[in-house]
Amino acid sequence: MNRQIIEKLTGIVGRDYLLTDRQQVSAYLYDQVEIPLRPKASEGCVVVKPASTEEVSAIVSLASQENIPVVVRGGGTGLCGAATPVYDSIIISMERMNHILEIDEKNMMAVMEAGVTLADLLEELEGHEGIGFPVHPGDEGAQMGGMVSTNAGGARAVRHGIMRNHIKGIKVVLADGSVLSLGGKLLKDNAGYNLMHLIIGSEGTLAIVTEVTLRIYPEEKYTASIVASFDTIEEASSAVLDVVKSGVSPLAVEYQDKKLNLETAELLGLHWPVKEGSADLIIILSEKTETALYDNCRAIDQICDRHHAREAMFAGTKQEEADVLAIRSGSYDVIKDDIYHSFDMAVPPSSMPEFLGELWRLVDSYDTRTNITAHIADGNVHNDILLVDGKVPDYHRELQEKMYQLCFSYHGTITGEHGIGKLRVGDLPLQKSPREMELMEQIKKVFDPKCILNPGTVLRSQREE
Amino acid sequence: MNRQIIEKLTGIVGRDYLLTDRQQVSAYLYDQVEIPLRPKASEGCVVVKPASTEEVSAIVSLASQENIPVVVRGGGTGLCGAATPVYDSIIISMERMNHILEIDEKNMMAVMEAGVTLADLLEELEGHEGIGFPVHPGDEGAQMGGMVSTNAGGARAVRHGIMRNHIKGIKVVLADGSVLSLGGKLLKDNAGYNLMHLIIGSEGTLAIVTEVTLRIYPEEKYTASIVASFDTIEEASSAVLDVVKSGVSPLAVEYQDKKLNLETAELLGLHWPVKEGSADLIIILSEKTETALYDNCRAIDQICDRHHAREAMFAGTKQEEADVLAIRSGSYDVIKDDIYHSFDMAVPPSSMPEFLGELWRLVDSYDTRTNITAHIADGNVHNDILLVDGKVPDYHRELQEKMYQLCFSYHGTITGEHGIGKLRVGDLPLQKSPREMELMEQIKKVFDPKCILNPGTVLRSQREE
Repeated sequence: MNRQIIEKLTGIVGRDYLLTDRQQVSAYLYDQVEIPLRPKASEGCVVVKPASTEEVSAIVSLASQENIPVVVRGGGTGLCGAATPVYDSIIISMERMNHILEIDEKNMMAVMEAGVTLADLLEELEGHEGIGFPVHPGDEGAQMGGMVSTNAGGARAVRHGIMRNHIKGIKVVLADGSVLSLGGKLLKDNAGYNLMHLIIGSEGTLAIVTEVTLRIYPEEKYTASIVASFDTIEEASSAVLDVVKSGVSPLAVEYQDKKLNLETAELLGLHWPVKEGSADLIIILSEKTETALYDNCRAIDQICDRHHAREAMFAGTKQEEADVLAIRSGSYDVIKDDIYHSFDMAVPPSSMPEFLGELWRLVDSYDTRTNITAHIADGNVHNDILLVDGKVPDYHRELQEKMYQLCFSYHGTITGEHGIGKLRVGDLPLQKSPREMELMEQIKKVFDPKCILNPGTVLRSQREE
Repeated sequence: MNRQIIEKLTGIVGRDYLLTDRQQVSAYLYDQVEIPLRPKASEGCVVVKPASTEEVSAIVSLASQENIPVVVRGGGTGLCGAATPVYDSIIISMERMNHILEIDEKNMMAVMEAGVTLADLLEELEGHEGIGFPVHPGDEGAQMGGMVSTNAGGARAVRHGIMRNHIKGIKVVLADGSVLSLGGKLLKDNAGYNLMHLIIGSEGTLAIVTEVTLRIYPEEKYTASIVASFDTIEEASSAVLDVVKSGVSPLAVEYQDKKLNLETAELLGLHWPVKEGSADLIIILSEKTETALYDNCRAIDQICDRHHAREAMFAGTKQEEADVLAIRSGSYDVIKDDIYHSFDMAVPPSSMPEFLGELWRLVDSYDTRTNITAHIADGNVHNDILLVDGKVPDYHRELQEKMYQLCFSYHGTITGEHGIGKLRVGDLPLQKSPREMELMEQIKKVFDPKCILNPGTVLRSQREE
């Protein structure tokens, strides 16, 4: 990046908040995508750390005039390479915009700068008794701006839905540097086209989110976890469909292969409570009263029984519950180094028994295996293609394509929650019609005619340089 | 409309499903906007009644080639003139596309043609024990396509939110006649820009909705209504904020002036259960267990007490409850003929006490009154400007402008649920910045370059003729 631009950027954010040193910049180039799959970051990037929407606006105005790509960096917890700059870019790190502006208990809304992490928000809410925020995409280092831009999901979508359901307002900087406030502390607003909902999930390609207004909620006091094991993944997922239909509304319903649970437990030195069967469910309940908690536990136990569960254990103490969740969330680290590509397909929930069964058989036909972890009540599956002797297997493209075709045969999507990013930018046209792709490209042009906002993400839009 | 076009339309839908007779067409020109406020319908319209998405597509292709405006007619229950054609148009009535295609109990979703009414859906669900659909915009003659296109709200948004939260998939016909399927039976889908959420609430100006996939839900069995009266609207609305914060999640919380409740009860020959005070709340509860219902009733009673309620009565029997709801929903008919303009402003819920108080005082300063009915927990107010001796008062524009300025001073919106339509098309720029208006206009151009889809609605986009 040339001297003049560096000087102008320094003029906006100050010398202390600009990084040009390659070593320092290198910490801002990648997200959590598996290493063999990462898009290669461009090497001529600089990092700026603005302190306000006005500074973001000034940076983007400059970038627009100079036709320089801009990539926003949030918590870096993404799983599709959206945060990796593939052109020489100005990387805008939101780390200093980390102020919680208001916890408004009357409207039950929180107003935050985009760099506030989920951990920050949850910590702040601990000081407001009985109030919580439900969406939980696994890594609490995720920042609010990123959670909006990726429409984050996670395990608790069963009951509370995804980020989109809870976002009431955003402040954004457009590609020309202008600032828009969209939505607000309103529960109903039908004035004109909803640009906020278009920007949610657009992965930093239509606008830069600098402020977020979220709904917060009264928290249920009584929680419990049930761990149930089944002989087959089909039985486990059939039980889940019945749980949802029964009106019991769990906080989360997670599936994981027993093999993976046992391996993780061993590695962490913890105890996994169910030994029989091969397919495990973790069902987390959260209720307002002890009676409701007890009633729902009993209802779930009966449903598991009907679906031939081998065991169904109640994680009664806080410690037992914490162990179960530690094993669930620690499992990825156990297998991470063996993974070439971790997927994020989603199908209609009722198709899960068949889809998962066919997925097993498909992978089996390649004489390999796939680890299956699923937000099973949402129909959202994280399975993988494994490295073979540490190397990317020859068949990886072919197997991926067959997985996608299987997913499409159930009217599924290639990404339920992680997003397109740069990882799936070539795959999106497999799922979408040419006409829909064309509309997306035209919308991108409306918002970002020079294609400076996170180019190469979501769409292949070419930059003119 | 010229002979050739009529013949081509006849070729698409058949002679029985095309109306050209002015008398017959006149039944398709207006919605439920108050008569003195209605936009004037264009007189050279024809009505076609397609039976399928393919026929809609063929009609729109023809309209596109011939540059003829297309206005979709659903249930005609709208309140902003969106369904009124202000150019000589092809009116597409969805009345024959009234088939419920699937009640999918496994995925808990309903798939319907766009002409299915809310009444049709609710009737069908009666045959599926324990399953319901929560959004209820008052008039059950509303069609699904219209409920999507207007992002319908209604009284039950307190607990269940608006239509947007429940729509999982739509099939649409674009302005060039091409057909897109967006979303599906997926609970999570982050593949590309969410065009579905952009089309929701766009009032037939970006695409024509022909099929809808909605989530359906286990129904709570135990319901009750509480009617509480307060001396002031400020006390009533403060009580509501506490109810919401307490974690009791009512199905609906409706405010209405006592005067209006008493007048309506008298006219209908029914009994209104609370006599004292001047500001009435109706709080509807719906719970899974009798215990939960009882606990929540008690909690609400205590909150009302704390806020100096004059009376709080439990509508215990089905008949008492039905009477209360009949009075609430019948009130509009009592005052309808006196109304010049009924509003739909919404503000942050916590601002309701002050906003409503100031609204009273503002209207009082014009030596008139305003009827206030509110989805009070949503911050959504329907008040009105009355006719004076049957005539539109001189001050109507001035008073409207002051109401809007008051609303904006609380960061409110001019329309919480009814939409912009043709009624508020001149008002939208009061609320939105020029840059946001410009983006909306450009998005309209992307979807509908010739401006044939419901022109004059939402935006002032000019047609080139």
